Amino acid sequence: MTKNVLVLPGDGIGPEIVAQAVRVLDAVNEQFSLNIKHESALVGGSAYDETGSPLPEETLAKAKAADAILLGAVGGPKWDKLDMYVRPEKGLLGLRSNLELFSNLRPAILYPQLAEASSLKPEIVAGLDILIVRELTGGIYFGQPRGIRTLENGEREGFNTYVYNESEIRRIGRSAFEAARQRGKRVCSIDKSNVLEVTVLWKEIMEEVAKEYPDVELTHMLVDNAAMQLVRAPKQFDVMVTGNMFGDILSDAAAMLTGSIGMLPSASLNAEGRGMYEPCHGSAPDIAGQGIANPLATILSVAMMLRYSLDAKDAADAIEAAVSKVLDLGLRTSDIASKGCETVSTQAMGDAVLAAL
Amino acid sequence: MTKNVLVLPGDGIGPEIVAQAVRVLDAVNEQFSLNIKHESALVGGSAYDETGSPLPEETLAKAKAADAILLGAVGGPKWDKLDMYVRPEKGLLGLRSNLELFSNLRPAILYPQLAEASSLKPEIVAGLDILIVRELTGGIYFGQPRGIRTLENGEREGFNTYVYNESEIRRIGRSAFEAARQRGKRVCSIDKSNVLEVTVLWKEIMEEVAKEYPDVELTHMLVDNAAMQLVRAPKQFDVMVTGNMFGDILSDAAAMLTGSIGMLPSASLNAEGRGMYEPCHGSAPDIAGQGIANPLATILSVAMMLRYSLDAKDAADAIEAAVSKVLDLGLRTSDIASKGCETVSTQAMGDAVLAAL
Ligand SMILES: CC(C)[C@H](C(=O)O)[C@@H](O)C(=O)O
Ligand SMILES: CC(C)[C@H](C(=O)O)[C@@H](O)C(=O)O
Repeated sequence: MTKNVLVLPGDGIGPEIVAQAVRVLDAVNEQFSLNIKHESALVGGSAYDETGSPLPEETLAKAKAADAILLGAVGGPKWDKLDMYVRPEKGLLGLRSNLELFSNLRPAILYPQLAEASSLKPEIVAGLDILIVRELTGGIYFGQPRGIRTLENGEREGFNTYVYNESEIRRIGRSAFEAARQRGKRVCSIDKSNVLEVTVLWKEIMEEVAKEYPDVELTHMLVDNAAMQLVRAPKQFDVMVTGNMFGDILSDAAAMLTGSIGMLPSASLNAEGRGMYEPCHGSAPDIAGQGIANPLATILSVAMMLRYSLDAKDAADAIEAAVSKVLDLGLRTSDIASKGCETVSTQAMGDAVLAAL
Repeated sequence: MTKNVLVLPGDGIGPEIVAQAVRVLDAVNEQFSLNIKHESALVGGSAYDETGSPLPEETLAKAKAADAILLGAVGGPKWDKLDMYVRPEKGLLGLRSNLELFSNLRPAILYPQLAEASSLKPEIVAGLDILIVRELTGGIYFGQPRGIRTLENGEREGFNTYVYNESEIRRIGRSAFEAARQRGKRVCSIDKSNVLEVTVLWKEIMEEVAKEYPDVELTHMLVDNAAMQLVRAPKQFDVMVTGNMFGDILSDAAAMLTGSIGMLPSASLNAEGRGMYEPCHGSAPDIAGQGIANPLATILSVAMMLRYSLDAKDAADAIEAAVSKVLDLGLRTSDIASKGCETVSTQAMGDAVLAAL
């Protein structure tokens, strides 16, 4: 049966890195006879420039029909004033919510070949391998009411609503416990239950979910402590599960611990396992068009896509092995440049992965 | 004129560390003829045990009358189920809001003597000296409506409101710019303006405040990026200003970068400069009563109190110099223990600071 992949290059370095990832996808498609077809569509600022909307109807329809989506990155200073994300029905957030991609898996892995790129001392991060499971279609990102209103005294007031119901918490909880079952069998749920009622409910439902997974251990941590512990001793974690906003902050901090955020893929899954795959890093407008961006996170996102949505574990393994091999060979894009290694372009890195496949 | 200090030892290691800080306060009071009087009151879990309230009327009245407050730490597992913080009118949050302590100053400084305690590589953190200015009496910690309600389908839903008006943003903005003027003259305002309307207003008002301070530079950063940059290159910051919840998370991460959170004081000030002073660390119930906690953050909080609320800069300088001297002498409590240094008790550390005064 044909599998359909929608490719959304997006903005900034998105098109450059996605181009290399698509070459890799084509190669494994052939090598493993996967019968994958792909087409492209517009999203983000580039979609806005062409159609007046950051998430055109046509893109959304294709996204809904696809078995999986590969996204580059969206946004940039050019569109900063355009209110592209603030409305939950638009752009990236619209894509996430319309496709119900509630479960965002963000691994933070230290590649042994890149250990020296980390800001942290080797003994703190060597072997780091944690997974942040972030709720992606609820919480304060989507809560109503929201806006800016004028008060009686003439002053303005901005407001947003942080809200979760039991089912939303339960399904992301199950995602995290399922993932933990395949790994270290430990889930740490992050909340601010000493202040925020919404996270009191979060904590309580996580306890309920834990009863369905007697083989997995559940602990709880306050979000401020979690931010500290990620710096102090990140290896204490296996799977961390948290809401949309805390997950946004903690997953970026965790990714940066590895010193190689240009290496980290992510998956956003819905209840049927269909998903959108994208690098953890952003659209890096400052280096767009220069051909120097690191395509590996996007290439590794293809591997995640093959594994989670396209039932092609062998092809995923092959890509991951190829990436490891090019690192062993000493090839580095400039973001992970290192003494004694060869600094290569986006395209040359793509070539190398293809050659290693 | 007599100055009145209210001492709130609190819970866990609070009483132990505060005892040493009070000895230091007494010593400088005498040495510099400061005419400071102090008395103690109950707060937190210990207040709850004795009076049924974590913030007894009597404590609040004394706090309102005092020129400054020295707080140890509050909370512990014993009281975790008691809803002590969740209601903004109670406990620590009640103290902050009743006294209108809206401006929370949290320095993150790397003590050169303790450089090796940091998780980060020396080149990343050597000389680190940043100040986080956190709004402390508004935002999602206090926003209404809040709670857990039952929906029509029988499910529960938790909700909190993240809200700021113009005046609240303006006054914390001014606090940050005033502080920056005394330091590196750079303010970085942290928001999530690509998603949350309340922080769109935040960003706009910060721009307005910046016009009042042409000598100070203002930049903006998204909170997820800020969490990354704190790990990647924390020395890029001078003063960071942010709301209550982002400030809670980022200031803990920043403090931990130094590897010596047991060393960091904080100030929470109202519009008249009256304030509450406390260590950045918590009540550490796991080591309470053992006499091994580090009293230096509390002792340095006394120095901040003398400088900001009691107009006694010389005494503040003397305490800070004494702390630096005991570190030079190689004295360390166990949290900052290090090879070649002597590990001492809470009391012995207090003795050493007194001797160095
Ligand atoms: C671009 C932005 C809306 C987005 C988010 O906050 O979710 C990004 O930071 C991310 O983490 O994917
Ligand atoms: C104890 C808790 C309510 C408090 C807060 O979140 O403000 C603490 O974490 C702090 O940062 O002072």
